[in-house]
Amino acid sequence: MAHHTLYRDGDGAVILDQTRLPFGLDHRRLQRLEDAAGAIRGMQVRGAPLIGATAACGVALAMQTDASDAGLDSALDVLGATRPTAVNLHWALARMRAALSALRAAERVAAAWSEFEAICAEDVATNAAIGRHGLELIRDHASARGDRPVRVMTHCNAGWLATLGHGTALAPIYAAHDAGIAVEVWVSETRPRNQGLLTAWELRDGGVAHRLIADNAAGLLMSRGEVDLVITGADRVAANGDTANKVGTYLKALAARDNGIPFYIAAPRSTIDHDCPSGTDIPIEERDGDEVRHVHGIAAGKAGVVAIAPPEAAVANPAFDVTPARLITAIITEVGMFPPERLQRLAAGGIR
Amino acid sequence: MAHHTLYRDGDGAVILDQTRLPFGLDHRRLQRLEDAAGAIRGMQVRGAPLIGATAACGVALAMQTDASDAGLDSALDVLGATRPTAVNLHWALARMRAALSALRAAERVAAAWSEFEAICAEDVATNAAIGRHGLELIRDHASARGDRPVRVMTHCNAGWLATLGHGTALAPIYAAHDAGIAVEVWVSETRPRNQGLLTAWELRDGGVAHRLIADNAAGLLMSRGEVDLVITGADRVAANGDTANKVGTYLKALAARDNGIPFYIAAPRSTIDHDCPSGTDIPIEERDGDEVRHVHGIAAGKAGVVAIAPPEAAVANPAFDVTPARLITAIITEVGMFPPERLQRLAAGGIR
Repeated sequence: MAHHTLYRDGDGAVILDQTRLPFGLDHRRLQRLEDAAGAIRGMQVRGAPLIGATAACGVALAMQTDASDAGLDSALDVLGATRPTAVNLHWALARMRAALSALRAAERVAAAWSEFEAICAEDVATNAAIGRHGLELIRDHASARGDRPVRVMTHCNAGWLATLGHGTALAPIYAAHDAGIAVEVWVSETRPRNQGLLTAWELRDGGVAHRLIADNAAGLLMSRGEVDLVITGADRVAANGDTANKVGTYLKALAARDNGIPFYIAAPRSTIDHDCPSGTDIPIEERDGDEVRHVHGIAAGKAGVVAIAPPEAAVANPAFDVTPARLITAIITEVGMFPPERLQRLAAGGIR
Repeated sequence: MAHHTLYRDGDGAVILDQTRLPFGLDHRRLQRLEDAAGAIRGMQVRGAPLIGATAACGVALAMQTDASDAGLDSALDVLGATRPTAVNLHWALARMRAALSALRAAERVAAAWSEFEAICAEDVATNAAIGRHGLELIRDHASARGDRPVRVMTHCNAGWLATLGHGTALAPIYAAHDAGIAVEVWVSETRPRNQGLLTAWELRDGGVAHRLIADNAAGLLMSRGEVDLVITGADRVAANGDTANKVGTYLKALAARDNGIPFYIAAPRSTIDHDCPSGTDIPIEERDGDEVRHVHGIAAGKAGVVAIAPPEAAVANPAFDVTPARLITAIITEVGMFPPERLQRLAAGGIR
């Protein structure tokens, strides 16, 4: 983990612009509320935990310009409207509201930065705890496999690029790699935004064996016995365990079930929305059709946007899908692994 | 259907080069055996029926140079090795062998062209018959839907670009459109080679309503009730009904089953391999990893190959997967619709 996805820098913050990866490694400064909102909307930052932290940062930036009640409300509204599916965004904004609303305007800037930094630090600790719990799972698989590597399939990017720490779905993989367990990762391209390339870039950087595949190849590999377990992240887990994650996750869960392969979600408790009864209550973001018509690539030595479909092509582009709880073996959180039917315990325990 | 995918032209043949679509409409002349073999290998022609016809054309071209027994054997070997999964290739070559092997060398050129043209004419008729049988299916769905269009999902391209006639999976759609039934088609991109763009181009040309989606979106659309039936083509149907088709088909079949949506294969009888007991006996082609690392696109106004992953990215690229017979509602052939368990009747009837 050679880089930081987001950090405070004086009266601003710095993000790693993920839309330039894997071909360019650019950082961008966030100075105003609109910079943070734009970075979330445009997916310069992405991944549910990182979206939440960036939203918290956006509140702190907004307080520097207008720390009045109206300024706070407006900042929370603007940031809350950036992306509909990931609940961590709303969780982080609710935290900021709780931390700031009772304060006088003059106290809000310092308190906002302080709460932002707490959210970041907690995410690092949460990632580490998810890694520890997931490591035990991978260790069990390794014992069962004998000499050959444990083959984990993931989807999208839920590594350090999606968080403040070592990631959610990739945290157990990094922990296993660090513990000397041989792991191989199947990395799905994750069209239309190709976040699989971010995962491949991360894993290469971390020295973890992996292979990139077209999203379409996931079922064949599972049917051939080339996958031992699947771990993905999540954007929102409903109270009943139904889980919204990057579109295509549901297809992987179906293939895992059809081939007797365990399917895990790795997510912090902040991703569990106890107010959302089931998957049908989760709003699914529809994004711009140009995400399907275009790719980021290198042509004639220059990185940029490339058209792969004509501009007149009619397109639908839902960004997430919902994996029903019945297809999920367990959810790996920072406080342990929970089969979907036991998630209620987290709410009942008052851990929200 | 404004173009032809393959036709004889004097002592050569002409193909529509599908690697340039949808941005360029280029034709190429095939003059020698190696031209035909290269066009199949490089996917300038693709689609199981068209691959078969192009192989037959390659035999005719080869006979013009060397019509000896050794020349015939060599041509059959070269063409038979171009692509492993589509059985129509071997079916067409077996037909050419049967038509030519007993003849004297001097008779073989004319006989080869004649057999090639018979194969092409039969494919046109076969496509039309598949269209008629599939039309009844779509008509039934249209009655059940009332005023709204029948929404069909397909995968890859199994339209006129994949055949000599109106296609296999798309033939029922064109037939329904011609019969005045409102149809809307969900077109999956079909990474890594993006043949969905060929389907979108065809449908646009034919005035059929459609929307392009990332392959990952298929499950969500089905879970939302936005798909009435799925129809795909096939590269090889085993005797038990297990079906190899473009990678990703299996994932769509799983999602269809999970949502109670009928899943159909449209394929000529020449795609059914009665000598292949089940899906595990079908060889799955592994293609060059650059197909995953690259896309065809337009950058700065010029069409060409664009890198979306770095050259060092480790890749796996299986080109097909196998959909188990248990997930297939029926196979639409030129002689009617058959649930997988009734395919044996086609063999028992001596129709091979």
